[in-house]
Amino acid sequence: MLLARVVGTVVATRKDPRLEGKKLLIVTPLTAEQVESGKEADAPGQASYLVAVDTVDAGYRETVIIVQGSSARMASTCKDCPVDTAIVGIVDTVTLGGG
Amino acid sequence: MLLARVVGTVVATRKDPRLEGKKLLIVTPLTAEQVESGKEADAPGQASYLVAVDTVDAGYRETVIIVQGSSARMASTCKDCPVDTAIVGIVDTVTLGGG
Amino acid sequence: MLLARVVGTVVATRKDPRLEGKKLLIVTPLTAEQVESGKEADAPGQASYLVAVDTVDAGYRETVIIVQGSSARMASTCKDCPVDTAIVGIVDTVTLGGG
Amino acid sequence: MLLARVVGTVVATRKDPRLEGKKLLIVTPLTAEQVESGKEADAPGQASYLVAVDTVDAGYRETVIIVQGSSARMASTCKDCPVDTAIVGIVDTVTLGGG
Amino acid sequence: MLLARVVGTVVATRKDPRLEGKKLLIVTPLTAEQVESGKEADAPGQASYLVAVDTVDAGYRETVIIVQGSSARMASTCKDCPVDTAIVGIVDTVTLGGG
Repeated sequence: MLLARVVGTVVATRKDPRLEGKKLLIVTPLTAEQVESGKEADAPGQASYLVAVDTVDAGYRETVIIVQGSSARMASTCKDCPVDTAIVGIVDTVTLGGG
Repeated sequence: MLLARVVGTVVATRKDPRLEGKKLLIVTPLTAEQVESGKEADAPGQASYLVAVDTVDAGYRETVIIVQGSSARMASTCKDCPVDTAIVGIVDTVTLGGG
Repeated sequence: MLLARVVGTVVATRKDPRLEGKKLLIVTPLTAEQVESGKEADAPGQASYLVAVDTVDAGYRETVIIVQGSSARMASTCKDCPVDTAIVGIVDTVTLGGG
Repeated sequence: MLLARVVGTVVATRKDPRLEGKKLLIVTPLTAEQVESGKEADAPGQASYLVAVDTVDAGYRETVIIVQGSSARMASTCKDCPVDTAIVGIVDTVTLGGG
Repeated sequence: MLLARVVGTVVATRKDPRLEGKKLLIVTPLTAEQVESGKEADAPGQASYLVAVDTVDAGYRETVIIVQGSSARMASTCKDCPVDTAIVGIVDTVTLGGG
């Protein structure tokens, strides 16, 4: 899985029937260091973006865990849906080091 | 999933039986910023390209959502087909920021 | 899926039983522009290569459509085989632009 | 699979029900050379990170084997879970060369 | 699939039960040119590495075919195992060009 930040939303009226009712968010992957320090580049110019189905009611700017590939279909409400990226957790803390 | 732009078409007469009748489009991934601003590099020189099965009747230059991997086979009409990329939504708007 | 060019062959006598009788070709991915223009770098120095199972009787230098991942096993003759890349179409034409 | 080092932990209270009780670790992929020599860059600045489910009771700084994609769901306790990366072994030694 | 060279071994005593008895090798991907010419960089400094399950009794320095993702589980002895990379063939020859 990857750490990511919720940075936006997507609206798509015309879509696959199995995407109906799903909240589609834009997320950008983060490094563990960015999450731990709370610092990341706010300029999204070089960022990569993914469209993810939100299954845990994530909010704007929250740090989340995303799962990709067929395993995204194991997330709640995503069974047999044409989705390859799902938000499956809200991150409280990331600790680097043996603490 | 990824945001992408429809930029062309592919014709292939000789192909796997399960690809018969499928519309194959050329798409190029976009960043969320490119979609929100409506600006992107029109010069396709450095672009990456994917061949995607269209399942939502997408048109030339439309911004779409593509799904990859085994989840592409969950799109309408793609069950058990040898396809790894499908267009599953037409994007109305992308909003970066908390709106 | 990706556009690719057939550039060679692989012979492997000792192999998984489910690969017996399969034609294994070397393909190199192409951009849509390379296919449309008919021009590509012939020097394969920087090219990336994949070993693909041919399921549509592709010939040397032909432009093909390849499918990757679990979907390669949906190609004819590949069911339950240890293959992650299959040639599933011969490209007649690629058109970039709204034609 | 990949070689990786355990470098941290993730706490996520709100998450998919099938992630409940799972230990989520931060791992960073290593090259075989780094593992064999015991030397790696300790500065994690440029490192890439993955969030992995630990299924073998790995400890901080241990060198592990990670499996990705749908195969992560074949690891103990991960069946049908929304996980795409799992730690499935603790590395004793890596030997480069014919020994 | 990819061409790769066997360059080492991994020993892991503590591991997933379904990895018991499996030979884990370190492989590094090769380009088709490297295989055809028999020349490759011997300095592994910049090489990428994968841990692969050997299913065809491959030896040190042999050129092999590896399969990745869920298809690795289609290799002999790998059914339902947490493996994402398997060696499924020993390469005799690679021929670039129409021969």
